[in-house]
Amino acid sequence: MEKIGIVGAGLIGSSWSAIFSSKGFDVVIYDSNKNVENEFKKRVETFLEELKFIDNKINIEDSLQNIKFVHDINYLSNNCTFIQDCSPEIIEIKQELFSKLDNSCPENVILSSSSSGMPISLITQNLKGKNRCIISHPVNPPHLIPCVEISPSLNTSDEVVNKTKDIFGKIGFSIIYVKKEIDGFILNRLQGALLNEAVKLYSEGYASADHIDSTVRNGLGLRWAFMGPFETIDLNAPGGIKDYMQRYGNMYLNMEKNNKILPDWSETNAIKLEKERREILSTDQLLKRAQKRNNMLKSLRKLKKDLNEEVIN
Amino acid sequence: MEKIGIVGAGLIGSSWSAIFSSKGFDVVIYDSNKNVENEFKKRVETFLEELKFIDNKINIEDSLQNIKFVHDINYLSNNCTFIQDCSPEIIEIKQELFSKLDNSCPENVILSSSSSGMPISLITQNLKGKNRCIISHPVNPPHLIPCVEISPSLNTSDEVVNKTKDIFGKIGFSIIYVKKEIDGFILNRLQGALLNEAVKLYSEGYASADHIDSTVRNGLGLRWAFMGPFETIDLNAPGGIKDYMQRYGNMYLNMEKNNKILPDWSETNAIKLEKERREILSTDQLLKRAQKRNNMLKSLRKLKKDLNEEVIN
Repeated sequence: MEKIGIVGAGLIGSSWSAIFSSKGFDVVIYDSNKNVENEFKKRVETFLEELKFIDNKINIEDSLQNIKFVHDINYLSNNCTFIQDCSPEIIEIKQELFSKLDNSCPENVILSSSSSGMPISLITQNLKGKNRCIISHPVNPPHLIPCVEISPSLNTSDEVVNKTKDIFGKIGFSIIYVKKEIDGFILNRLQGALLNEAVKLYSEGYASADHIDSTVRNGLGLRWAFMGPFETIDLNAPGGIKDYMQRYGNMYLNMEKNNKILPDWSETNAIKLEKERREILSTDQLLKRAQKRNNMLKSLRKLKKDLNEEVIN
Repeated sequence: MEKIGIVGAGLIGSSWSAIFSSKGFDVVIYDSNKNVENEFKKRVETFLEELKFIDNKINIEDSLQNIKFVHDINYLSNNCTFIQDCSPEIIEIKQELFSKLDNSCPENVILSSSSSGMPISLITQNLKGKNRCIISHPVNPPHLIPCVEISPSLNTSDEVVNKTKDIFGKIGFSIIYVKKEIDGFILNRLQGALLNEAVKLYSEGYASADHIDSTVRNGLGLRWAFMGPFETIDLNAPGGIKDYMQRYGNMYLNMEKNNKILPDWSETNAIKLEKERREILSTDQLLKRAQKRNNMLKSLRKLKKDLNEEVIN
């Protein structure tokens, strides 16, 4: 079993710690701030309880025993075979971290980043060991959403790609292999396409923010909980996806062709959207709603398990 | 209680019949093909059983008693107060049907269409009674996805809009009010945005069709089952949606700015996608998978009910 090193004990780092430890991996967690250890432990325990709801076989005590919190990053370099960066999303911080790790880790150690937007080639452009560097991008909250994007650069070796896939496969994650580097990878491009259209429909006055949301949460999203866009249309025409594409392709193509305005991400529009959202959910309820979201996600994961719709790679 | 007339006893007509009858409405169904009655009844029974799974209070026998199948469309004109068109998605057929109904129905009868793409102004442009015509567009399968788009034209009266909202509110549907006519309404524009991006990522070679699907079914779709794109980002930055828009707005804006290629809906690409899908699901399994989809949807609806996440208008 690989020994997993995690840099950064925030939300993402805590989440990775919970999922890896629950699947029997040894986890070493490092954070430059020494005062976060207690908070980290409490968070990991909560996450492990959520994971146990989905998979009753998980032993919380054993999982916690698998995690070691250290205050010296060199402990990771000397003891781990796979290091997952969960540092802040700031390019200079990540470049410095990867440079440090590349200098201190033996050659066989894989250096992976949770970055949601930066290509690994940008983070590692000046490194000797860029061949061992890769993106493994999770979805928030990672312990409840079993999906990771593996995005290598042209320099990343096949061995590193395969080993990374293997590690995330062992924790039951769906692996999205991004064959060529692209801004936003696959997940945030799909999310971005939906968001950009939602922002346009809102700012052009076609529907309220809540009605646009409701189209997803009471409409499209019910199918998307179980199947992606291609499978959805495969089942929405009698003859399958080719039949559907012939029937409706022109409609979708024309939507794109005639959709020339850019989405309005300005502060003015953000203030309007903020106002609409705060009428539905006040600021002091945000955290509570995020907890409810996690409750809903764990229930949906359990449901999908009961329906034999778990991740298959 | 309004008496609902439904034109067309296919999938959509059967689905509307099940949901309206289960909520105590009298339903009169008409189809120009007299041989479909048995098939229709069997389908409605199946749909009612699925609805009963979600809401145990539904009485299948009583619901079936609420439905009357007729072979003369004039019966609808003379007896119903709200008529829902579920005829084929062909403009000439819909124009002829609406013209016929407009001539034969008393003035107070609302004429509504399930059309997924045609604006009501196009269907009713030459009609005297265009003020009583409206789109009420469902999501497939309508009895399991509680969402309807209400899209009036500039000619539709406010009274008709309000009465239509009221009727769909009574069957517990989420009402998406489309304030101005637009191709694809809200739902298919959102679906189209995701599909167009998925088609691009596939044909430009960034990921396999199944990996793109998996990004949704094991990733984004889990959240979208419970919350729309705006609520999702409202919970994904510490300070809410405005905070999120300030952090990531430029990333999404640049994705759109730099995304100049058109999605490839050609036959060549359709054949490639068909091949990938058929390796995962053979043609003879399509129907079975659609049934499984319905099973999953009803389980998810039940779960959302148990979690107090049902439709609120």
